[in-house]
Amino acid sequence: MSNNRTNTNLTKLKLDPEDIQRTLIDIQKYLNCLDNLDTNNESYLNDLKSLINSLHSSNIAFILESLQKDQRDKLWKMVSTVNRSGVLLEIDNWTRESLIETLSFEDLIEITSILDTDELAYLADDLPLDVIVEAQKKLNPEERFQFLRAMGYPEDSVGAIMDFEMIKVREDITLEVVLRYLRRLQELPDHTDQIFVVDRQEKLQGTLSLAKILVSELDVEVKDVMDSDFLTLNPLDSDSDAASAFERYDLVSAPVMDDKGRLIGRVTVADVVDIIQEDSQEQDLSRAGLQEEDIFAPILTAIQNRAPWLLFNLCTATIASLLAARFETTVSRIVILAFLMPIVAGIGGNSGNQTMTMIIRALAVGRITEDNIWQLVKKELKVTFLVGILGGALSALFAWIISNSIQITIVTVIAMICNMLVGAVIGVLVPMLRAHFGKDPAIGSSVILTFITDSFGFFIFLSLATFLLL
Amino acid sequence: MSNNRTNTNLTKLKLDPEDIQRTLIDIQKYLNCLDNLDTNNESYLNDLKSLINSLHSSNIAFILESLQKDQRDKLWKMVSTVNRSGVLLEIDNWTRESLIETLSFEDLIEITSILDTDELAYLADDLPLDVIVEAQKKLNPEERFQFLRAMGYPEDSVGAIMDFEMIKVREDITLEVVLRYLRRLQELPDHTDQIFVVDRQEKLQGTLSLAKILVSELDVEVKDVMDSDFLTLNPLDSDSDAASAFERYDLVSAPVMDDKGRLIGRVTVADVVDIIQEDSQEQDLSRAGLQEEDIFAPILTAIQNRAPWLLFNLCTATIASLLAARFETTVSRIVILAFLMPIVAGIGGNSGNQTMTMIIRALAVGRITEDNIWQLVKKELKVTFLVGILGGALSALFAWIISNSIQITIVTVIAMICNMLVGAVIGVLVPMLRAHFGKDPAIGSSVILTFITDSFGFFIFLSLATFLLL
Repeated sequence: MSNNRTNTNLTKLKLDPEDIQRTLIDIQKYLNCLDNLDTNNESYLNDLKSLINSLHSSNIAFILESLQKDQRDKLWKMVSTVNRSGVLLEIDNWTRESLIETLSFEDLIEITSILDTDELAYLADDLPLDVIVEAQKKLNPEERFQFLRAMGYPEDSVGAIMDFEMIKVREDITLEVVLRYLRRLQELPDHTDQIFVVDRQEKLQGTLSLAKILVSELDVEVKDVMDSDFLTLNPLDSDSDAASAFERYDLVSAPVMDDKGRLIGRVTVADVVDIIQEDSQEQDLSRAGLQEEDIFAPILTAIQNRAPWLLFNLCTATIASLLAARFETTVSRIVILAFLMPIVAGIGGNSGNQTMTMIIRALAVGRITEDNIWQLVKKELKVTFLVGILGGALSALFAWIISNSIQITIVTVIAMICNMLVGAVIGVLVPMLRAHFGKDPAIGSSVILTFITDSFGFFIFLSLATFLLL
Repeated sequence: MSNNRTNTNLTKLKLDPEDIQRTLIDIQKYLNCLDNLDTNNESYLNDLKSLINSLHSSNIAFILESLQKDQRDKLWKMVSTVNRSGVLLEIDNWTRESLIETLSFEDLIEITSILDTDELAYLADDLPLDVIVEAQKKLNPEERFQFLRAMGYPEDSVGAIMDFEMIKVREDITLEVVLRYLRRLQELPDHTDQIFVVDRQEKLQGTLSLAKILVSELDVEVKDVMDSDFLTLNPLDSDSDAASAFERYDLVSAPVMDDKGRLIGRVTVADVVDIIQEDSQEQDLSRAGLQEEDIFAPILTAIQNRAPWLLFNLCTATIASLLAARFETTVSRIVILAFLMPIVAGIGGNSGNQTMTMIIRALAVGRITEDNIWQLVKKELKVTFLVGILGGALSALFAWIISNSIQITIVTVIAMICNMLVGAVIGVLVPMLRAHFGKDPAIGSSVILTFITDSFGFFIFLSLATFLLL
């Protein structure tokens, strides 16, 4: 029992990230001691077992993710079956597979037997085939149908995150009957904020919130109090679209209908919060050319994750340099150009990156239309030009300090402003074109931007120098 | 009434972002036509008015955000008072102020009169003082106390997002009494998934979910069915910590208690979803050195937003170049070094950026402890070294193509691997140090990284060349 923040060790629900980190540190100490003890210290082991199993499954998942492979496997063996199913559902993708590998067929059957159908479908990709076959045998025909259907939806779709646990009623019964029905169930599915009103063909007629049931008189019929204006999802809708609808309309759950208008499942806000977090993390990583990675991943996995993007960048940087190398004569006569060249290239990239960030955000929410695109481009060019004048003044000072030459200073400033304008155009164009061709505008755009601002920056600077200074 | 996806124009709740964009385009057409008509076309105006007011307030907010200033002001005049209050609550910060400026004192009083206390506190920063004074007069003493308290909490705290609309009951009454009480209320606050059990001193004893009320027998007492293990928030907790707790424990609402254990408010998942979205957008922008900006912001505002970061980057790039310029003699003898130099600097930055992204993520969730930090550093260095060997092989090829010299190729490869290792060290150290000193590890780290990998890259490459090739 805990109704006080100071009793944090008594409750499973810890708020403070530092509380959880402290538990992680404790567990690391336990594990280190166990490593150092020669004999198996029973009481020590039991303390650790009861500590880890007293935690909420998402905190166990976090702690497992934060341990190195050998310690993780050791701790995982101590987690009870009930907690194991929760952990497998909560843990990051990159750790799940390795945890499942350590479990025996019997362990896995025990774990899968306490999963809901949608949870089983969620884990199915990582489970061995014989476990899935065995687990399926325990489903009733309706559940098996749901399971197979859930397996068929693409990864980022509503179908992949929906569950099948929901309460359905008819519209012509009274609330008294609804209440009697609910009381017989003993428990409602998690995140039930509303029940669904369907006809004989399972077609969705309306929704009825629990709050409405509680405040209404018992003798009214469902159809008189149900809500008929509600958001419905299609299993093939993108999960990000669903998430942004939950955000806009402050939803807790939403029904999922097939193409014939039949209710087949629901999505809850708990899934949506996960989607929003994951999308934002994926974007963070993809911007650095990375995928999700275990911080203690084997070296080879880490290399496979990082090398492709780095090597690709190396190639584009080399192409830009090869282009610049055509001006070898110019640079050999005015060596100082070599040291101004990276500045011109860099500022174009940085400035273009600002424009691109604004455009990608506006694109993501659908703010850009034919009517405002030209205003937007004009505005970006104006802003860039004016910031370029400011930057030009500053870089004129620097170029003068480095080169001591008015001509070189002028060439630097002109090249810089030109390259910034190119950066602005690329910053608008590349994400727009990628979005137009159905690609994610965020990923890859920055590589293209840097390549163009580098190449063009070198080119315009060295050409101007060649024509004006030699 | 709509229970079908094809009837989207009949429902306020549109899922598909393209539906909303289509409405935006329609409204832009309307506004353009109105601009071009000399006389005031009444029927046109009325059509537009009823179109905009038929939308959900968060969609109206989106459309206003996406219009240019003059069109935005024109449309805003057509929005009804009820919708206006919703729009002001939903709209992005950068647009809110300018919308409020266009409203008269009377308009604002009308709008504020339909707000809850916490909503009034939320808008108070942007409202004129005389409006707040007038609105406060209409609050009862308890509401005024809540309002003043809410105004006092810092911006990113739980206190700033909590609301005061919640149902409280005593533990010694039966569910039958609870039900009678709820029925008298006629309506429950939005997102009521649970009611709170308090004693005479308003101290929180437990929580009781609506689902539990519905499935339990009516003659049991509240204390026998209430849940005593629940998460509580303090008004001074950070809103991001609260958000991650909602994510971990799949919550819909959570009680907020003061230091004496008294219930003073609650936070709902709707606020939390907004926090998660805003945090992720802020990070996106801050990485490019930007703050939230109206895509149609006046040019001057846009310049103020963008210039500081760009000019700061220009300074660091210049310092790196000044350092490189000390090797002018070396470059003047072997000009080709000038074109290899940016490649060496760039790969160090890119590789360090990958390391830094991993570390910032691990830090954000509290995964890094004293026990695992050294393993982590060792792993990053090993991975970087091995990727460096790969990249070295590739760049050896490129350096050979550019320079046709074995010595230059060797110098390039060594400098590149050294600079990548420096990038890895900086990628670990900078975010760790920033976090240690209580700063956000994400912001500013990349500027420092680029500065160091540029400077060191130029330095190591040109020094090696000076000692080995001259």
